Order: sequence, then structure tokens, then C-alpha cells
Amino acid sequence: MDQRISIVTLGVADLGRARSFYEQLGWRGQEVEETVFFQAGAMVLVLWGRAKLAADSGVADDGSGFDRVTLAQNVRSAEEVDAIVAAAAEAGATVTRKPTATFYGGYAGVFLDPDGHAWEIAFNPAFTITDDGAVVLPEF
Amino acid sequence: MDQRISIVTLGVADLGRARSFYEQLGWRGQEVEETVFFQAGAMVLVLWGRAKLAADSGVADDGSGFDRVTLAQNVRSAEEVDAIVAAAAEAGATVTRKPTATFYGGYAGVFLDPDGHAWEIAFNPAFTITDDGAVVLPEF
Repeated sequence: MDQRISIVTLGVADLGRARSFYEQLGWRGQEVEETVFFQAGAMVLVLWGRAKLAADSGVADDGSGFDRVTLAQNVRSAEEVDAIVAAAAEAGATVTRKPTATFYGGYAGVFLDPDGHAWEIAFNPAFTITDDGAVVLPEF
Repeated sequence: MDQRISIVTLGVADLGRARSFYEQLGWRGQEVEETVFFQAGAMVLVLWGRAKLAADSGVADDGSGFDRVTLAQNVRSAEEVDAIVAAAAEAGATVTRKPTATFYGGYAGVFLDPDGHAWEIAFNPAFTITDDGAVVLPEF
């Protein structure tokens, strides 16, 4: 597994309020299907409804210890997704979403580290990964 | 405020266990004062005891909704810290640690966004910020 975070997704209760807050701080993003994407240097910050984020991460939204934040590492192939999720399981992670095809035409799985922090490992052909590993959003 | 995350800190229950997990996945870091720092591309992933992280973020560890993750943006001066934390407060953030000098010879403050996600804004002279905004760890 590369030593890299591609995306930090924050689960939010009110997407409009959250987006407005970051915009007041000068951030500019793109909203697609009730999801706000901000290019942030070599990575991406995403705002998404917390219930959707929990469901997508394979965890219960309330009372499960879900920390309303999911980290993601974007990789270059479905095979890499399988290999990293398998290695994480071997190292003691709990796989909460087995690697599978995603609605956006990619392939991804999710695991929780030993403290319950959620990591998605994703192959998303729409998001460019540069030679030095930065992830670059498309114009949606 | 620049559109950038410099550091993601994960609060953990058992630092040795957490470090071992990431090392089994191939990550290599440096441990200093019970804190593990991993250079991760243009940013840094940190593992730190969750009680310490909560205290440092100015929030209660349990029952407060603290999500055991603190994002940080490193900036180039104490004045920038003051300006960003003031702007966040103006935009509706809750300031949980007013900007103040830190034990490591820097200057930092912490706020919670409208959903309670913690952001530290820090000036840390020991961490290099490159021209393109990447943060680079020193050899400790």
C-alpha cells in the first residue's frame, strides 16, 4: 500500500451549511449528486451526508463508533484494490465492504483499521492519478 | 484559507497496535514522544493517543461527538493562524483552542466546523512548507 491519502470525506448533517462554511473560508468546489468535491493540493476534500457516508463505508451511522470521516486511497487498478484490502485484512483490519464494482464505474472496498478508522481503497477511472501520486478531480 | 490539508491525525487507543498495522501495510514512519508521523506524499498522517488528541483539540474524548480525527493546515506564520481562526469563527466555527504558542515552539489554534470536525491551524517552524504548499517532515 502506498503511503498516501487521496481523499478525506467528512460526513455532514447539512450539506448546504457545510459547503457554505468552507466557501466562506475561501474554498471553491464542485457539487455533484449532493456531494461537494474540493481539490486540495495533491488530494481532495469531500463533503457528503453522514448517513450516506456511513452506508457507503459499511458501518452504522450512530453508536458504532464511526467517526464521520473516511480516508481514501485511489489506486490505478481493480487488482490493486483487491491486493490492498486483502493485505489490510491480513494485518487485522475489518473489511466492511468487500471490493466490488461501484456505481460510478470503478471498483472499491472499505476496511476499518484497528481503531475503527475507515479507509476506502478505490480505483476510479474518472479521477486522474499523476506520476507522483497526486489525485486530480475532473471537471464534472 | 488555502484549500489544503497538511496533516490528518488519527486518534488511537493503542499506539503500538496502530503503528504495527500501518507498518504491516508497508508504511514507514518516525515515532517521537508517543506520536507516529508518516510522510504521505505532500501531506502527513499522524497516529496519536485519542485522549491526547482530544485534549489537544480542546474537546471531550467521549460523548462529545469528537470523531477521533483532527485535520490540520500548516501555514507560514502566527499571523496567518490568527487570521484563519478568526475567519472560521466569523463563518460559524466553534473555536476550541484559541491560537496560542505551542510546546514545540510554534503557534496554533483549533476550531470545529459546523459538523464538529476539528481543524488545527498551525505554524510549526520545524515542518517545511514547500512553494507548492506540501508539508515535509524533518528527520526527528
